[in-house]
Amino acid sequence: MTLEVGVLGYRFMGKAHANAMARLPMFFPDAPDVERHVLVGRDEDALADAADRLGFENIATDWADVVDEVDVFYNLGPNHVHADPSIAALEAGTPVLCEKPLANDLESAERMADAAESAGVPTAAAFNYRYVPAIQYAKNLIESGEIGEIHHFRGQYLQDWLVDPEAPWSWRNDAEMAGSGALGDLGAHTIDLARFLVGDVARVSGHLRTFVDERPVDGGDEARPVTVDDAYSAQAELEGGVMATLEASRFATGHKNDHSIEIHGSEGSLKFSLERLNELEVLRGDDRGYETILVTDESDPYVEHWWPPGHVLGWEHTFVHENYEFLSAVESGDEHHPDFHDGLAVQRVLAAIQESDERGEWVEVN
Amino acid sequence: MTLEVGVLGYRFMGKAHANAMARLPMFFPDAPDVERHVLVGRDEDALADAADRLGFENIATDWADVVDEVDVFYNLGPNHVHADPSIAALEAGTPVLCEKPLANDLESAERMADAAESAGVPTAAAFNYRYVPAIQYAKNLIESGEIGEIHHFRGQYLQDWLVDPEAPWSWRNDAEMAGSGALGDLGAHTIDLARFLVGDVARVSGHLRTFVDERPVDGGDEARPVTVDDAYSAQAELEGGVMATLEASRFATGHKNDHSIEIHGSEGSLKFSLERLNELEVLRGDDRGYETILVTDESDPYVEHWWPPGHVLGWEHTFVHENYEFLSAVESGDEHHPDFHDGLAVQRVLAAIQESDERGEWVEVN
Amino acid sequence: MTLEVGVLGYRFMGKAHANAMARLPMFFPDAPDVERHVLVGRDEDALADAADRLGFENIATDWADVVDEVDVFYNLGPNHVHADPSIAALEAGTPVLCEKPLANDLESAERMADAAESAGVPTAAAFNYRYVPAIQYAKNLIESGEIGEIHHFRGQYLQDWLVDPEAPWSWRNDAEMAGSGALGDLGAHTIDLARFLVGDVARVSGHLRTFVDERPVDGGDEARPVTVDDAYSAQAELEGGVMATLEASRFATGHKNDHSIEIHGSEGSLKFSLERLNELEVLRGDDRGYETILVTDESDPYVEHWWPPGHVLGWEHTFVHENYEFLSAVESGDEHHPDFHDGLAVQRVLAAIQESDERGEWVEVN
Amino acid sequence: MTLEVGVLGYRFMGKAHANAMARLPMFFPDAPDVERHVLVGRDEDALADAADRLGFENIATDWADVVDEVDVFYNLGPNHVHADPSIAALEAGTPVLCEKPLANDLESAERMADAAESAGVPTAAAFNYRYVPAIQYAKNLIESGEIGEIHHFRGQYLQDWLVDPEAPWSWRNDAEMAGSGALGDLGAHTIDLARFLVGDVARVSGHLRTFVDERPVDGGDEARPVTVDDAYSAQAELEGGVMATLEASRFATGHKNDHSIEIHGSEGSLKFSLERLNELEVLRGDDRGYETILVTDESDPYVEHWWPPGHVLGWEHTFVHENYEFLSAVESGDEHHPDFHDGLAVQRVLAAIQESDERGEWVEVN
Repeated sequence: MTLEVGVLGYRFMGKAHANAMARLPMFFPDAPDVERHVLVGRDEDALADAADRLGFENIATDWADVVDEVDVFYNLGPNHVHADPSIAALEAGTPVLCEKPLANDLESAERMADAAESAGVPTAAAFNYRYVPAIQYAKNLIESGEIGEIHHFRGQYLQDWLVDPEAPWSWRNDAEMAGSGALGDLGAHTIDLARFLVGDVARVSGHLRTFVDERPVDGGDEARPVTVDDAYSAQAELEGGVMATLEASRFATGHKNDHSIEIHGSEGSLKFSLERLNELEVLRGDDRGYETILVTDESDPYVEHWWPPGHVLGWEHTFVHENYEFLSAVESGDEHHPDFHDGLAVQRVLAAIQESDERGEWVEVN
Repeated sequence: MTLEVGVLGYRFMGKAHANAMARLPMFFPDAPDVERHVLVGRDEDALADAADRLGFENIATDWADVVDEVDVFYNLGPNHVHADPSIAALEAGTPVLCEKPLANDLESAERMADAAESAGVPTAAAFNYRYVPAIQYAKNLIESGEIGEIHHFRGQYLQDWLVDPEAPWSWRNDAEMAGSGALGDLGAHTIDLARFLVGDVARVSGHLRTFVDERPVDGGDEARPVTVDDAYSAQAELEGGVMATLEASRFATGHKNDHSIEIHGSEGSLKFSLERLNELEVLRGDDRGYETILVTDESDPYVEHWWPPGHVLGWEHTFVHENYEFLSAVESGDEHHPDFHDGLAVQRVLAAIQESDERGEWVEVN
Repeated sequence: MTLEVGVLGYRFMGKAHANAMARLPMFFPDAPDVERHVLVGRDEDALADAADRLGFENIATDWADVVDEVDVFYNLGPNHVHADPSIAALEAGTPVLCEKPLANDLESAERMADAAESAGVPTAAAFNYRYVPAIQYAKNLIESGEIGEIHHFRGQYLQDWLVDPEAPWSWRNDAEMAGSGALGDLGAHTIDLARFLVGDVARVSGHLRTFVDERPVDGGDEARPVTVDDAYSAQAELEGGVMATLEASRFATGHKNDHSIEIHGSEGSLKFSLERLNELEVLRGDDRGYETILVTDESDPYVEHWWPPGHVLGWEHTFVHENYEFLSAVESGDEHHPDFHDGLAVQRVLAAIQESDERGEWVEVN
Repeated sequence: MTLEVGVLGYRFMGKAHANAMARLPMFFPDAPDVERHVLVGRDEDALADAADRLGFENIATDWADVVDEVDVFYNLGPNHVHADPSIAALEAGTPVLCEKPLANDLESAERMADAAESAGVPTAAAFNYRYVPAIQYAKNLIESGEIGEIHHFRGQYLQDWLVDPEAPWSWRNDAEMAGSGALGDLGAHTIDLARFLVGDVARVSGHLRTFVDERPVDGGDEARPVTVDDAYSAQAELEGGVMATLEASRFATGHKNDHSIEIHGSEGSLKFSLERLNELEVLRGDDRGYETILVTDESDPYVEHWWPPGHVLGWEHTFVHENYEFLSAVESGDEHHPDFHDGLAVQRVLAAIQESDERGEWVEVN
């Protein structure tokens, strides 16, 4: 059986997932057979070019024609397009992978999770950083108790592409289309890793900040308002009383894609940075300092599929692992995580942080 | 003229300041002459031993006898002993250096600052990390505009000496004697650096946490309650709208004395870590990454007094610089910072963080 | 036109090059069309499996049947199989890419370079580390004069897979099959980067060492002699009087694939480490310390083909770049470097290091 | 009893040792009482100033008047002044500490070691880096077998103060006064650490290089020839067959005082860098990466004398430890290492490296 995949979106994420699917046969021979069946978009010419380059058999300009004809549907569009096509696909019984954050707002995310529940098919909220071998390694350490009882979780996601006030306006600066700014785009990843590695978020205190209020539209005289946050910070209490501090910015000069996680437990500590994603810093037991582990041994998560020890992987490999896991679940019918319920759980935290910022007080996450 | 110095406290801080004074003549020949005149404490035998080792001429068991007879008074006792002797000294017209945090509570700090105001003599709130050459270097970069307009300040102070629940109870675990825990002991340093490098704190949202509620008394069967925080975090807005995140813990397994500061501005970024205190990471202008600067050149702050480039300094040198600056101000009568007003400003932030934690909402700092 | 490629070797390097060819269409749309036409090996069953997984149309068990029927021939076999098939291909006018080191011994390498000269077709000596973006970036800095006149080149390649004396014997431990040990396998890469970045090697003083004299044959009682070096070091003078120190080991406990390069010039310095291959440490002009540059900007070599800034690449990407450059040269008929003459130049240095070790004195490289 | 110390030399090393002696009473209460009795030099005015600042009771312009009147003699002059005063002191039965390298040439060093042998009093060759706590910690790890059998030793000492061809001529550029350049000044430290941590040097192959042949005399029109090396490299075999690579340069742009040591053994590896002297990177047993140990715990060598964990030491503390050990040996009459025989052993290696460079072949070290 070959899974026919329909993909909405052909830019950055379209390329990342198309590449991931293309690489499965050589490196994950037990993955299901996949056909990049149809690429969906609005601009027919750009779409045809992209389909050719990304290896899709067909193109379509209306997702409604696609969602019930494919075996799997990937929703890689902007945040405000996440809900409707995903729900339509689920209503047609089609498994769906949706990019993060799950939705623009909590209500949409809830509808999506409900649709997933009703459909009873696998879904994926595309938090690809769970699939970094070093993160899986960290997860295993925590689950085996080597870090002990967790006291602290710290997550930062630093970028700098908006620090120039002349950087052009894009849909990511618009609350209607993006829901939020650094919070949803970057913070969603951090919150997902907090949930994955440590546990659910019980309550939060959030702080949002927009440093530049309007930005020029590219190639024109117009300026449009920035209606989302340029940066957020949050304090949180995770289940079990873990203290968490979360932060993201698009104004962290010099940082391109710097997502870092630090965890302190009663028996050890962990540090991870996305820009050095092959490494995990681990302190445990009688260690006096962090051990810098290059997570590229054959015994490390996913590594045996790739190269010998010390031959490092890149960012894109996380998508291969993600596609492998999700498509395998689609084939087998097994449960898959992170699914739309995980996406909803993250969305609840995002919403609570925004609400906390507005109210100036702590907010419980339900 | 020789300044006769009276020092209350002969343990960790007593040793650090005695050493600092002892080293001035060889390395800071223009510093005032100083006599370690009298060491003050309660246990006469221990005191005599310490005075001998630390080079004091005399000992005294009552600070009241000392504060008006010396030229300078150093208050290095536990936090709850900061107010009365310091105020008495100031009322006698004696300049005072007091260890941080300035006081146990805001009311005491206000009384101390009032006394300083009335006395009109130099005072010092002993925030020694201002005197790290790399921090002075950072200050100069910021003041010269090389980092641009500041958007983010991030400060963490991580230790781990309480992560073991059997670690013994001490005065630092007691609200009566210490005022607060990690917040006042460690966070005071971070807040002072935020003020020194960036600006005053306008409002805060704080989070305090005590992980272990009681601890055994050393050498006995008794356990005593822990009435202060083991860790705190805070979000803050500094003047000018700078976003700040602050955090300290005594439960950060593997970290001994890890005070780190990160700053992002419109033109650059800075990173500092106390455990590598000879280094400053600087990104500015067209730089694409941080430049790791070893701040040991002759032209760097205070360095010409010491050794050639690359011959690194240690933690204790900050006290030599601090003593040099304060004692020079005492001799000249010039203003000195950080003084008791700076100490009070930090105390206001500490109090606001505690109040915010209790109320669950943001608190303005007046 | 589609280039039909024949590949000898289907293990580690076979997989690396097959993957590289497979990825060209999506990421390098101007690369020539390539067909993985035939995979060559001896074990027919293993070969058929590999061809299926690696995407080859056909298999063949005799390279002699292949070399004149394909448009390009890749020789990825053990070192002692490099000469004959490569020469046969060249005699048939077929462009050849050959894995490094070019040959087992100097005489074979000379025959290969002569054959390349006679054939007048593009050849490639597969020194893939030239194709790391950070190395290309370093090359550009040096060529633009930003590092000034070079004084020092330092190269180390550290692995540890033989430190266990019970690690099994393999062809890499045998002088007949491998020519040399760490010297040829690892040192060849370092020497190629010295030539690429700085200049030719004029004279050398070498030191070879075998720590374990025989090793068990896997799955048997037999032990076989180790007839190659476990580690080498060399001092060298490069053209223009540059001092160089070179070193490689398979006994560097804890190091998996740690190839590091350091260069000091009159105006700056550079540092690179393969295990953090997205980074280059650069010091130039008035810099006081190394700037850690993440070489993932769109303007960086090859990066625009891949992902946005901060989305790091892996080891395998060097092969994609290498295949792109070589296959483009095959299509266009343009010159390509590193070619067999470059491979021969490296082989001369390898031979001189061995000769120097035997004679105990410096040896000129001709 | 108070030891009266006479010190020849009042610049960099004079200050370092005077400071060390001054600090003993406060931090090493069991050290002998020391009086900085007399400072020896030629320029009476400068000498008087220095004596005042460095705390000496007297001055003298002829060392011959001093060596038999003091309890201990410190020879901190330029290399060509090491032999005669040290020998005179020893002939008078006075214990001697002499800065490194022990002498200008092998013959002088032999005479000095002979004089020490005849005198039967403690001597010190002032290799202060043995006294870095992290180096002592490394020594303990190696001696306890935790690193296993050593295979590799690698030492580099990088500075850059001569990379500017206009940097002025000094005695350190003159073979008559300095013996050699980077080799003796920097390499002597590396060779001493090789001997201290691993073992004696059996044979060497050396390479010396002078990049700039003459330099301007400061404040004049004259230029003087540079008759020593600007940089050296060496390959060596240590006892037991350990491979060693050694290197030092005064042309390593951007490096101020960067002395690094790396050791690979059958069970582990170690890394140390002087510019981060509080840290040791340790890999052992089942570790997969280096653990960055902050060697500032109370249980670490010498640390209990100083400050709590995480309160880092500086370069100068090595001199305090060195003075403590040597002066304690003088008081007790116990043997002390590194002594003049250790200094001679290093000098033999320096001489062998020079001879090897001249002859172009390996040289045995006797």
